[in-house]
Amino acid sequence: MTAYSRLEAIFRKTAALGDALAILHWDMATMMPNGGAESRTEQIATLKGIAHETITAPDLAELLTTAATETLDNWERANLREMHREWVHASALPADLVDALTRAESACEMVWREARPASDFKRVLPHLRDLLGLVRQVGAIKAERLGVGVYDALLDQYEPGGRSSEIDPVFTHLEGFLPGFIGEALEVQAGKPPLLATSGPFPVESQKALGLKMMEMLGFDFHHGRLDVSHHPFCGGTPADTRITTRYDDDDFVSAMMGVLHETGHALYEFGLPKGRWGSQPVGRARGMVAHESQSLLMEMQACRSRDFMGFAAPLIRETFDRQGAEWEADNLYRRGIRVERGFIRVEADEVTYPAHVIIRYRLEKALIEGRMELEDLPAAWNEGYGRLLGIAPPDDRLGCLQDIHWFGGSWGYFPTYTLGAMTAAQLFDAAQRADGDILAGLGRGDFKPLRDWLRTNIHGKGSLLSTRELLTEATGRPLDPTVFEAHLRRRYLG
Amino acid sequence: MTAYSRLEAIFRKTAALGDALAILHWDMATMMPNGGAESRTEQIATLKGIAHETITAPDLAELLTTAATETLDNWERANLREMHREWVHASALPADLVDALTRAESACEMVWREARPASDFKRVLPHLRDLLGLVRQVGAIKAERLGVGVYDALLDQYEPGGRSSEIDPVFTHLEGFLPGFIGEALEVQAGKPPLLATSGPFPVESQKALGLKMMEMLGFDFHHGRLDVSHHPFCGGTPADTRITTRYDDDDFVSAMMGVLHETGHALYEFGLPKGRWGSQPVGRARGMVAHESQSLLMEMQACRSRDFMGFAAPLIRETFDRQGAEWEADNLYRRGIRVERGFIRVEADEVTYPAHVIIRYRLEKALIEGRMELEDLPAAWNEGYGRLLGIAPPDDRLGCLQDIHWFGGSWGYFPTYTLGAMTAAQLFDAAQRADGDILAGLGRGDFKPLRDWLRTNIHGKGSLLSTRELLTEATGRPLDPTVFEAHLRRRYLG
Repeated sequence: MTAYSRLEAIFRKTAALGDALAILHWDMATMMPNGGAESRTEQIATLKGIAHETITAPDLAELLTTAATETLDNWERANLREMHREWVHASALPADLVDALTRAESACEMVWREARPASDFKRVLPHLRDLLGLVRQVGAIKAERLGVGVYDALLDQYEPGGRSSEIDPVFTHLEGFLPGFIGEALEVQAGKPPLLATSGPFPVESQKALGLKMMEMLGFDFHHGRLDVSHHPFCGGTPADTRITTRYDDDDFVSAMMGVLHETGHALYEFGLPKGRWGSQPVGRARGMVAHESQSLLMEMQACRSRDFMGFAAPLIRETFDRQGAEWEADNLYRRGIRVERGFIRVEADEVTYPAHVIIRYRLEKALIEGRMELEDLPAAWNEGYGRLLGIAPPDDRLGCLQDIHWFGGSWGYFPTYTLGAMTAAQLFDAAQRADGDILAGLGRGDFKPLRDWLRTNIHGKGSLLSTRELLTEATGRPLDPTVFEAHLRRRYLG
Repeated sequence: MTAYSRLEAIFRKTAALGDALAILHWDMATMMPNGGAESRTEQIATLKGIAHETITAPDLAELLTTAATETLDNWERANLREMHREWVHASALPADLVDALTRAESACEMVWREARPASDFKRVLPHLRDLLGLVRQVGAIKAERLGVGVYDALLDQYEPGGRSSEIDPVFTHLEGFLPGFIGEALEVQAGKPPLLATSGPFPVESQKALGLKMMEMLGFDFHHGRLDVSHHPFCGGTPADTRITTRYDDDDFVSAMMGVLHETGHALYEFGLPKGRWGSQPVGRARGMVAHESQSLLMEMQACRSRDFMGFAAPLIRETFDRQGAEWEADNLYRRGIRVERGFIRVEADEVTYPAHVIIRYRLEKALIEGRMELEDLPAAWNEGYGRLLGIAPPDDRLGCLQDIHWFGGSWGYFPTYTLGAMTAAQLFDAAQRADGDILAGLGRGDFKPLRDWLRTNIHGKGSLLSTRELLTEATGRPLDPTVFEAHLRRRYLG
């Protein structure tokens, strides 16, 4: 038995553990009674501990070294690369640092839960300082192992191979045109007749029926997945059993519907990943957070907020809720879906202003990680960023730097993946349309098959065979190019 | 650190794995889309494999030996005994026998699924012969390790400490009076005015509302549990997160309701088990299948099919389904709940005829395991048993020896626990009433607290501290006594 085959057996085991963990996490967010939390935390910690032990077992390093000298085909070679990457991340940190980090994350997040509603940054500051100190230690150790900068080492946890040297020029381009563009888009919007309100109530059962109908249309495989409710919408489970969630608001059907469309984009990626042998190997898993977010945003933002799709969806929506009138016509619904507004809150932001929210966070977290800025100065720097990019001033830290859980829960280096995903989505959708002229027309008749086929061939079926950069280049002919996203925004919002 | 404390840490880990497995099993039966089955089987096999490795690790035997020489209190001593028992069962079998058994179980069960509807015993016979051969090997190895007979070694897997030398006299007593008693009960029943039909449809939502109301009444803790739907009702999950299921029949509300009451009995046992340190140790888990079945049958058969409870429940049922008339009066509903009938199918049997179904199976499986009978003779021997104990002749093997999954799936030595549970339930309910005169009166006003308190003190809270025999003796003053069950039947069916 070759070293490589022994590695495949080991990673098949950690994949099964990972899949079990995914179901336990899904259950925790959707089904578990509150009283089960403590015992569930124990179950999750135990399974994670076993997976960590397995991947950091003393003989694994040697197997990886030996396997690298064996004859491997393309997929095996890529699989070995992904195994190596998982091993580096898992084995880099000493156990006491992992412990300290886990404890600091919980402590900081707990204080943040109180500090946010009280808009009291000072209260959480000491905890955040402790946590950031540990995160920087983690970054420094992994940076050494990966041979990259500290920020990139953290980013690499979410986006394998992600490098700030590639992000910086792209974000700089966005930063250059966004402030002016937002103003123009708002002006165009103001010049149009006012939006007509689509008022509720919208019964949950009808909203769910609409969501299920759209999932089916997009190609969601109900033999391998399901739809449920959770506090925050997400896509969880495993490629063979992919579970998406949404939440319902009686007065607004759009948020649940867009949630379903977004998560279905994630789910289609999971469904389309390689099956069989590679299904239980690192190379068969989704490429990273940027590719994943690109798939959800491609469906939600590019395809389903398009005028073409809204033309098809509007009658379906009218029929589902038994309504009629001008406010239920495709034009009004379309304009509702692409409404632009300068706001303080990232998760409520539209497609045009969203990148500004992300760029501000990216610049700040990078400066903090690299020691170019003090945490005390965060609130002021945050507000300065909002003034510069969005022209607004958060009235307090609740609507400012305390709004997102990421930093307070230990997720540093995550934010850029949102906007990189959005830009990747635009570039993929653009290439897909060039490759198959029927894709946009398909959306107009509720037929997602042409689009889905293109994505399956060019993205989903490749798993982690290529780097994100290679994947995008092979699919679209070039690496990430911010002008495609810009062109999409100009077409949709100024056209 | 003592050997004993190291053992507690190891078993805390296997408990967390067991809890995770319980949730994965529950999910498989209630939530999982069919396409997830293969991947789920892999997850379950992986987790079971890890638990098995953990418990059969080379140093565990030595830790058990060393711990036995350390100073331990009562609970620790009992915990060590339970650890030792788990270790014996897990480590007794060579890996290739476990493999062969697993494969034979799947193969036989698969053929049985086709042979049953075709009533074709011959078709499954070769597979059943292979399987039984392996089961006998398992029994022989464990018998040697446990110092008991082969049948008892198999029984011990489900009912720790269960011994046929204690079952035989009890079942012989039942066998002596049952055939005559069934005739008498049917005669008394025939002498009463005919039952009035309670006809449907009964909307699922109303049935569910009724079930939830009754669960609350019995003391189900919704902070630590939930109610769902599955093909076969069961009680799963963990003590901190106990999940019961039922199934709904539009035309019959009684089956779902009784399913809920039965499973709630199981759940109350889980809720009442020791918490904290012992909650994650073998001694803190339920005593065995007999004790567990006694708790479900105590609630369903003893408490909830009583005339006292039906007096309280009848108005609730009428109100739930918005019905009235003589057929909805407590007397008619009570008599419906205790209707006796000679039937072929165990799972449809009433409380009076049920033990006959079990005794027939017990005698047969014991003879087969002990090599006193050939599998070829099973159908004839089965039918002979039904003639002797129930006075009926199954028209074919579908309604005869092919009806239950147990033997064909590898569960040999399980059947007696059903009737031992029923008898234990009668004896406990009898003792509880003697101890607290308000228990029966409580049921009449929908107040289960007196009963629940007695059970928590005398059964639930003791986990696996005592043997089943000791537990029953401490709670009722004597070991299992079939005359208490007999007296219960006489009172209810001849009185």
